[in-house]
Amino acid sequence: MYSHKLLKPDGRQLTLYSRQPIAEDITAPSPSNEPVRANPHLRWHPLRGEWVAYASHRQGRTFMPPPEYNPLAPTSNPTFPTELPQGKYDVAVFDNRFPSMALAAHNPPESIVETLPAQGACEVVVFTQDASASLSSLELEHLDLLLQVWGDRTRVLGDNPQIQYVLPFENKGVEVGVTLHHPHGQIYAYPFIPPVPAKMLAMQQAYYQEHRRGLLEDLIQKEIADNQRIIYQDDHAIAFVPVCARYPYEVWIAPKQPVANFMDLTPQQRWGLARALKTVTLKYDGLWNRPFPYLMAWFGGPTDGVDHPEAHLHAQFYPPYRTSERLKYLAGTELAAGMFANDALPEEKAKELQAVTVNIEKQIAA
Amino acid sequence: MYSHKLLKPDGRQLTLYSRQPIAEDITAPSPSNEPVRANPHLRWHPLRGEWVAYASHRQGRTFMPPPEYNPLAPTSNPTFPTELPQGKYDVAVFDNRFPSMALAAHNPPESIVETLPAQGACEVVVFTQDASASLSSLELEHLDLLLQVWGDRTRVLGDNPQIQYVLPFENKGVEVGVTLHHPHGQIYAYPFIPPVPAKMLAMQQAYYQEHRRGLLEDLIQKEIADNQRIIYQDDHAIAFVPVCARYPYEVWIAPKQPVANFMDLTPQQRWGLARALKTVTLKYDGLWNRPFPYLMAWFGGPTDGVDHPEAHLHAQFYPPYRTSERLKYLAGTELAAGMFANDALPEEKAKELQAVTVNIEKQIAA
Repeated sequence: MYSHKLLKPDGRQLTLYSRQPIAEDITAPSPSNEPVRANPHLRWHPLRGEWVAYASHRQGRTFMPPPEYNPLAPTSNPTFPTELPQGKYDVAVFDNRFPSMALAAHNPPESIVETLPAQGACEVVVFTQDASASLSSLELEHLDLLLQVWGDRTRVLGDNPQIQYVLPFENKGVEVGVTLHHPHGQIYAYPFIPPVPAKMLAMQQAYYQEHRRGLLEDLIQKEIADNQRIIYQDDHAIAFVPVCARYPYEVWIAPKQPVANFMDLTPQQRWGLARALKTVTLKYDGLWNRPFPYLMAWFGGPTDGVDHPEAHLHAQFYPPYRTSERLKYLAGTELAAGMFANDALPEEKAKELQAVTVNIEKQIAA
Repeated sequence: MYSHKLLKPDGRQLTLYSRQPIAEDITAPSPSNEPVRANPHLRWHPLRGEWVAYASHRQGRTFMPPPEYNPLAPTSNPTFPTELPQGKYDVAVFDNRFPSMALAAHNPPESIVETLPAQGACEVVVFTQDASASLSSLELEHLDLLLQVWGDRTRVLGDNPQIQYVLPFENKGVEVGVTLHHPHGQIYAYPFIPPVPAKMLAMQQAYYQEHRRGLLEDLIQKEIADNQRIIYQDDHAIAFVPVCARYPYEVWIAPKQPVANFMDLTPQQRWGLARALKTVTLKYDGLWNRPFPYLMAWFGGPTDGVDHPEAHLHAQFYPPYRTSERLKYLAGTELAAGMFANDALPEEKAKELQAVTVNIEKQIAA
């Protein structure tokens, strides 16, 4: 993997990643030259025992791009620069222009609850230059590179002593609020371990201390033995509808052997994950022959400088649909109580996905 | 408050509540005479350490009601019975026909994770016979009755030794997935304390043990002293945008003095809560001059037979909008990490609601 680090005119960082060497003379554009001066802060929620982030962004100068303007495409009209330059590269990562957290955050307001500067990072990951692609249409080699990119970002961000946890995710589809369809994800780097991964790590740690084995590692072995909900597997990686799915079409992807983070993957494990990722997203899109929306998040170990033998890197997909026509709205019992309720069994939904035939070797023309 | 308990032809319970005596000769209809044989089960989610409920319901006989059919209105055409009878009553509560939990649940399937019968209860609370009403349009006396009804249901359900926690809530608006606009809420009664109230109670208990005062009680005193985010207050009750709001227009309603549950409210506190409830919902509807969607949930103490001096009954409103035109989608950082991020400050949103003038004494014609 080759990478090339650039600075945008507004002070934000851009890193290009490629399977080929990257030209040295590329420069980084930005939709705006105004310095990004985000100063988000955190407030303590005393009842829930968690932090909430607040970021109020000044509106920049009026920017009236043409209707076909796509900020994540390489700049084609210099009058309306985008976030990305022309040139040969596969994946690009840059600082979010409207971040919920920023390493330079300072002087949080005084309040009746504890406050902190929201010293984290929010990055945008553009998966490809092709605006019409999706994870399902990218070549396996490209997905393998993306897994390396997530590893590089986890390392770079996690090396900062302020950062305790790095979460790569993708929100996909208007159903989850995404209006920009150029394939991209985000990375949030938190100055604390957020509540959801913290809870999962605590469960994993308790299990590891008792059994000296991984909780997810053992669940995967049970899923293999049960053989009802598996969507993909090879020697190194697996995808399955978990027995305890909270979303009807929830799928998890993981290496079979636990590794704490992307950087710890063997090339064989990474290749398996790329194949699993392509299989799952192709099956999703094939289920109703239309782009399938989801939230995908990758949970690894914290970047707190401590070993985490209990952590087992994996992706969880949360699709918003419960049938082809009906969304699963999160309402009273899910949001207020924290108990998810479903009217379909994971076994039934797994069967639907198992029935979708896909060919991950076939390349789809852009 | 008067109440009258009835049995539907399909075996479900119906209780009518009124400020006036209720006629003895009322009988309970049901859209279907087929016995409800729901048998939901719980599966343990080992990574999150929480229960997930699964209920697969058989489709009943074909039922083709006329387009104006409203299952929550009193039955007007006996060919198409609704859930409710004709007659004089104010509020009605009945067992959900498609429950996520049922006290009679039994023999859960064996699985690779722990399973349990989902022995809880799911009730529907019809707030009024008037299909075009809403909490904001109901008389204060009617809201006061509704608070008593929630108390009666909490007592009745909580008296069952299987039930550990009772959660009354309302999902309102198509934006949160509600297509049935007759004003109604739901009550979920859980055989365990669900994760969200469990966390809040743990935080309250730790605070109570250290300070011998309530966590929310003290937060309310700080909100009053800060005087920036208050939406309503009288001697007994208060409504405010909490300093740590996770949703842009989040509002909490509480008695100023802690009580663990609805049954413990003094008449003065209950009247204050009715006034706060009407004020908040009127302000919501007045903000953009259209019905304002939200999820409202009431958090009290558990019904586990133990005293809970740490618990402080209160409502939390989670509205899905962040501006009049834009929904706040829960995505990566909210759902996958559990850290909420907002681009508006609670102080700004509170100002918007404070600026809406309402008259809670005025009766609105139906």
